[in-house]
Amino acid sequence: MPRTTAATRPAKPDAPQARFRLRVTAGDVIAIGPGKIALLEAVARTGSITTAAKSLDMSYRRAWMLLDELNSQLKSPAVDSSKGGQHGGGTALTPVGERLVETYRRIETTAEKATATDMRALVRLLNR
Amino acid sequence: MPRTTAATRPAKPDAPQARFRLRVTAGDVIAIGPGKIALLEAVARTGSITTAAKSLDMSYRRAWMLLDELNSQLKSPAVDSSKGGQHGGGTALTPVGERLVETYRRIETTAEKATATDMRALVRLLNR
Repeated sequence: MPRTTAATRPAKPDAPQARFRLRVTAGDVIAIGPGKIALLEAVARTGSITTAAKSLDMSYRRAWMLLDELNSQLKSPAVDSSKGGQHGGGTALTPVGERLVETYRRIETTAEKATATDMRALVRLLNR
Repeated sequence: MPRTTAATRPAKPDAPQARFRLRVTAGDVIAIGPGKIALLEAVARTGSITTAAKSLDMSYRRAWMLLDELNSQLKSPAVDSSKGGQHGGGTALTPVGERLVETYRRIETTAEKATATDMRALVRLLNR
């Protein structure tokens, strides 16, 4: 689901909204983007790649692949499959994974706050 | 071409870079996004939809369609095909079109400046 904030949340479902998407690219590869961040958040919430994938309507295979790709692009992995879950054996974010999500979301919030006036001006140009 | 700033421009072609993409959506439709803004800038530069489309490796048909779609979503059109060009008959941005491009680019710059420290922290998590 797209993430919204109070500043950009639409009054009606179809009301226009301005939104940032932040991506960190390396060459042609999107190393960090909204999809991977949402997946990390779901893993943190559920302690399980299977449940996280389900909650995002994603196959286990795709979730696993995205996390593996992310881990390989970081200096230190974002998820650890030896920890987490009620009985162990689940998956948890590492301190690096937690920092990654926090920093990404803080960047979005800071950007939205810093640009709120211009964002509203942009939306007001639309005919609804 | 993706737009970069001094803050995010990579030292090497494959060095990671953090970038915002700003979209204004209305329901499922992307009313304003990076593609339409780049097209408006090309029209302003060239005074012609044909030349603007060529400069972006885009068909005339697609450029015309994007501009028509954009005009129909705005309270007042962004381009005017009765003006512009050396001998008239070309296409120019209206004051609304100019304001749209200016506001969009200013939002990007403001967001990049406000988040520069966190952006660098994010990029530093990557293993290159």
